[in-house]
Amino acid sequence: MERIDCLPGNLKIIQSDEVFSYSIDAVLLAHFAHTRPFSRVVDLCAGNGAVGLMLSQKTKGKIDMVEIQSRLAEMAERSVQLNGLEEQVNVIHDDLSNALHYIEHDSVDCLVCNPPYFDCHDQNKVNPNPYLALARHEITFQLEQLMNTARQLLKTKGHLYLVHRPSRLLDIIHSMEAAQIAPKRIQFVYPKKEKEANIVLVEGMKQGKKNGLVIMPPLIVHQENNKYTAEVEKILHG
Amino acid sequence: MERIDCLPGNLKIIQSDEVFSYSIDAVLLAHFAHTRPFSRVVDLCAGNGAVGLMLSQKTKGKIDMVEIQSRLAEMAERSVQLNGLEEQVNVIHDDLSNALHYIEHDSVDCLVCNPPYFDCHDQNKVNPNPYLALARHEITFQLEQLMNTARQLLKTKGHLYLVHRPSRLLDIIHSMEAAQIAPKRIQFVYPKKEKEANIVLVEGMKQGKKNGLVIMPPLIVHQENNKYTAEVEKILHG
Repeated sequence: MERIDCLPGNLKIIQSDEVFSYSIDAVLLAHFAHTRPFSRVVDLCAGNGAVGLMLSQKTKGKIDMVEIQSRLAEMAERSVQLNGLEEQVNVIHDDLSNALHYIEHDSVDCLVCNPPYFDCHDQNKVNPNPYLALARHEITFQLEQLMNTARQLLKTKGHLYLVHRPSRLLDIIHSMEAAQIAPKRIQFVYPKKEKEANIVLVEGMKQGKKNGLVIMPPLIVHQENNKYTAEVEKILHG
Repeated sequence: MERIDCLPGNLKIIQSDEVFSYSIDAVLLAHFAHTRPFSRVVDLCAGNGAVGLMLSQKTKGKIDMVEIQSRLAEMAERSVQLNGLEEQVNVIHDDLSNALHYIEHDSVDCLVCNPPYFDCHDQNKVNPNPYLALARHEITFQLEQLMNTARQLLKTKGHLYLVHRPSRLLDIIHSMEAAQIAPKRIQFVYPKKEKEANIVLVEGMKQGKKNGLVIMPPLIVHQENNKYTAEVEKILHG
């Protein structure tokens, strides 16, 4: 069953719990990413298009969203139309490793990615829903492939923005460095102030200097009473 | 001018601002380190002995403190006597690269280190006070040497505990991995909740598995009114 939900920035998005619904991770990623008035933007794991749609409200630059699953790519396409963003936002239904067939190399200012989180070797956590399974497990690609594609697409000094699980931080750092994308800013997201981080946001710069890493202020999602903190409330609802 | 200060755990410590005084980093490191009732402990950059003295209150195991600067080693030695800890705590006045001359290899359960923070290539930040300069700059050794010594001293599955600056996190991870010490827990310390992290605490395990990194809950030092948070107050004053 599909439905139309609201997305921060006065946007609408087509969702379905059977297939895929955007999570707070997508909202935090779109908020974390820096853009300029005409940044060239690519979303490499677009899902149903939440991050790309939100970024259309931060920049007037062209946005390509790459999504391998046909059902999700088609939902993203319809959400683009629903918001009247066809001039700015384009959906590419293909594997991210083919992104260079559609997008010029060394052309991208801002590359965002909210990739599958779980290692496909971890059989215990494989979800029986094939859409969720494909979204959550690195069945079609690994972090290394992602970073390799990012390296090819990004301009020198262009920025990568990634949201992921903190348990994979070392893999993320290694794969970024192998692709000559220097980690520059990291922000940890904590569900409550006394809880371990469960989300990490990472900014990298293609061929950036290897010094000067900054750990951003903590982002704490819920107060003691389980309501959103003022900071997260502002990100979610403006 | 020397003075006798209090240290958490009902301890006394000899200090001098002209030479070296322990900082909150030392207290947080001693608190962060896990010990067992009879852990064999080594402090590789002991300074005036704050971390080793505090750990004597957490374990009954033997503690060796290694300090290259004679003035600091001598102050640490007198602080050990002042607290009547000569049976448990021993000061080694030598370079940490010579630690294997005094301590058996593969014998240590818990290795702690609060090393010099600044890169000695960064001439702008060299402090004119030679004691502070030597403490703050990696003049006598680098992270790589520290990790190499740690690897030799630690038992298999023994733990390293390090306090450092977040800007050096990538160097820390690289040097740990080169020494086969797997990062297992990382805690970021933020001066206030809206500030970037300025301290990082890292736990590594010699020949530990490379998965399962945990980012601990955020440690926030000051409230809005500049008083210590309840959590830090408890660490500092019990």
